[in-house]
Amino acid sequence: MALIVQKFGGTSVGSIERIQNVAKRCLAAQRAGNKVVVIVSAMSGETNRLLGLAHALTAVPNAREMDAIAATGEQVAAGLTALAIEAEGGRARSLLGHQVKVLTDGAFTKARIRTIDHSKIQATLEAGEIAVVAGFQGVDDDGNITTLGRGGSDTSAVAIAAAIGADACEIFTDVDGVYTTDPNICPSARKIDRISYEEMLELASLGAKVLQIRSVEIAMKYKVPVHVRSSFNETPGTWVTSEDKSLEDVVVAGVAYDKNDARVHLVGVLDKPGVVAEVFAAIAEKNVSVDMIIQNATSNSEGRADVTFTVSRTDLVRAKPFIEEVASKVGASAVKYDEDIVKVSIVGLGMRSHAGVAAKMFKLLADEGINIQAISTSEIKVSCIVHQKYTELAVRTLHDGFGLGKPVG
Amino acid sequence: MALIVQKFGGTSVGSIERIQNVAKRCLAAQRAGNKVVVIVSAMSGETNRLLGLAHALTAVPNAREMDAIAATGEQVAAGLTALAIEAEGGRARSLLGHQVKVLTDGAFTKARIRTIDHSKIQATLEAGEIAVVAGFQGVDDDGNITTLGRGGSDTSAVAIAAAIGADACEIFTDVDGVYTTDPNICPSARKIDRISYEEMLELASLGAKVLQIRSVEIAMKYKVPVHVRSSFNETPGTWVTSEDKSLEDVVVAGVAYDKNDARVHLVGVLDKPGVVAEVFAAIAEKNVSVDMIIQNATSNSEGRADVTFTVSRTDLVRAKPFIEEVASKVGASAVKYDEDIVKVSIVGLGMRSHAGVAAKMFKLLADEGINIQAISTSEIKVSCIVHQKYTELAVRTLHDGFGLGKPVG
Repeated sequence: MALIVQKFGGTSVGSIERIQNVAKRCLAAQRAGNKVVVIVSAMSGETNRLLGLAHALTAVPNAREMDAIAATGEQVAAGLTALAIEAEGGRARSLLGHQVKVLTDGAFTKARIRTIDHSKIQATLEAGEIAVVAGFQGVDDDGNITTLGRGGSDTSAVAIAAAIGADACEIFTDVDGVYTTDPNICPSARKIDRISYEEMLELASLGAKVLQIRSVEIAMKYKVPVHVRSSFNETPGTWVTSEDKSLEDVVVAGVAYDKNDARVHLVGVLDKPGVVAEVFAAIAEKNVSVDMIIQNATSNSEGRADVTFTVSRTDLVRAKPFIEEVASKVGASAVKYDEDIVKVSIVGLGMRSHAGVAAKMFKLLADEGINIQAISTSEIKVSCIVHQKYTELAVRTLHDGFGLGKPVG
Repeated sequence: MALIVQKFGGTSVGSIERIQNVAKRCLAAQRAGNKVVVIVSAMSGETNRLLGLAHALTAVPNAREMDAIAATGEQVAAGLTALAIEAEGGRARSLLGHQVKVLTDGAFTKARIRTIDHSKIQATLEAGEIAVVAGFQGVDDDGNITTLGRGGSDTSAVAIAAAIGADACEIFTDVDGVYTTDPNICPSARKIDRISYEEMLELASLGAKVLQIRSVEIAMKYKVPVHVRSSFNETPGTWVTSEDKSLEDVVVAGVAYDKNDARVHLVGVLDKPGVVAEVFAAIAEKNVSVDMIIQNATSNSEGRADVTFTVSRTDLVRAKPFIEEVASKVGASAVKYDEDIVKVSIVGLGMRSHAGVAAKMFKLLADEGINIQAISTSEIKVSCIVHQKYTELAVRTLHDGFGLGKPVG
């Protein structure tokens, strides 16, 4: 008998009929001899409806009240799912964040889980019932309702799986699993059967939206096997697990892209010690995170250098005034912005032991005439900034160039 | 400086605009120098929407889950009201049943309040904030969410007013106050300026739907002055308070009617000791409450009697099978049902000291040719069952006959 956590997203509980399907699925797992904990998101559209009501009252709603309001979406979904399981002849009990309880810090709208008390979930399972836990929500030390941020139900699911020592955490979603790249722009994209936490973490942070990044971090930390799969069919999806030999044989596991970056170019900055540090300290102070940084002395100007970096496009509007302030302080002659960029990345554990992966990436892009504007690398990832018009071409080129495509046949 | 509780019903918070009006109203009360606690119901229509979702899944939903689902209506309304107060420049904090906390028994969907911890409300008020409490909801010993039944927000408001020792509990609603009778059928109906708890209790239980019965019981027990008034204007409404001399001068305070009764007639029951007791014990056992009971030996049948009683029409469908079972047990020759009845009642503290009030009621009805089918009385009330077709005529006749009409001007 296994102990499994099943998480269903908003689309999977988006209507009465779909909730009934979820109920059948949980019951099937229980009848197969498992103890089952279900985590649900709000019915699709509900969170937006609730936030819309709040924003109709005020442009900048109080975060504590926003959480109290938003958390009702999951509360309703949990209650309805428990009812649906009973309607199918099973027994279930809904548990809210403050009932479980999922203790978080007090950072409303983006709280982080501190501890999870597993006693109520365990008691529910011992009684032969399915525990239906409202995802996305927790409670702080003072009993205030908190939420974990968008996609937080993935985090709830994996954290609860870790707390109760589940054998697996199944993330049901509207896609079949994790793909080697976005199938919408690359027809030869293939579903990945197994991937390591580290690779999944890179893919998630590079814009593959199947799993919330924090949930992967928690899964990795507590070694929770995660199974990403479709809520609409029985096909096995993608297992996200600890790395092993077989995984390391794959050089590149996937290709990701992210259009949410913008490039900032400071022209002719004074080229002396401490200047660049001053620029990035000023930016960090405003809570804007910088991704890639490139500095190069320009040939035509003595004692001057150009500094280029990328920030997320959503931060750019907010960041512009103080970027320009610090730019003039460090003597820059101009500040240029470019939003027509895309970050294309390859990810794979195998890169650690295979030399020349980055070089091959650059050559594949060059062969298609795609100019690389910036490069950043980590142990298991290489990212290139290119013009946004090349997005699809670059992704397909890398995907097929690294042999990720479906076998021809 | 006074401490006041203001309760707003579903219609009063039924839209963003109305919530903004509620916010203005609370802030005005606070700026006038009062400490203010606001209790809100769910936005009108929301509770029905939520119950509709549950009933789409199962005909008889689990009561615990129903409460977890239904309580979200007030949770959202409380959060939105707090946001609206902040948008108007005030400071507010929403508090849910489990946060306050409002401790109830475990009778889901109709829980009763046991204790209310006033510390969080007091701390909120001490901080200069308006406390916005979600009505209708509580939490049991085990942390399960409970609800107080339909109209339970009135009960929340009065119970919280009692717990914090409020100077007054204002119940804002869509009518101007408590009327001498239903203005829809009696144009001369007048708003009552002051009424005693006892009279309000009788009027509420007789079908005047302005206040929930339990809230009046609590107000009476803890002597909370209640002010029923319109949320759409500033006109003073009706004060419900302890009786005093001036109130006792009024013989009849109001006329109520209730179409929710049905009459059951057992023909030819064996007329011997214990038989009637057997009938009503059997009915009580099924949790059906009987209102009036009339027993009379029939002239044409030796050793037989007819038994007539009334039950609420909603209970009748459920009650019929075991009424018929016990009827045959006690030898009844037939069971007849009549749903075309109405209970018309007069209520007034003054009846205690004024003789002949009931007799005057019977005469007023008889003068209009209205036949009385059954009568029941209490210390401050007389009720008559008449044919339903006489509803409006009977109410107008009693209302004007006892001098409750508007002064002719």
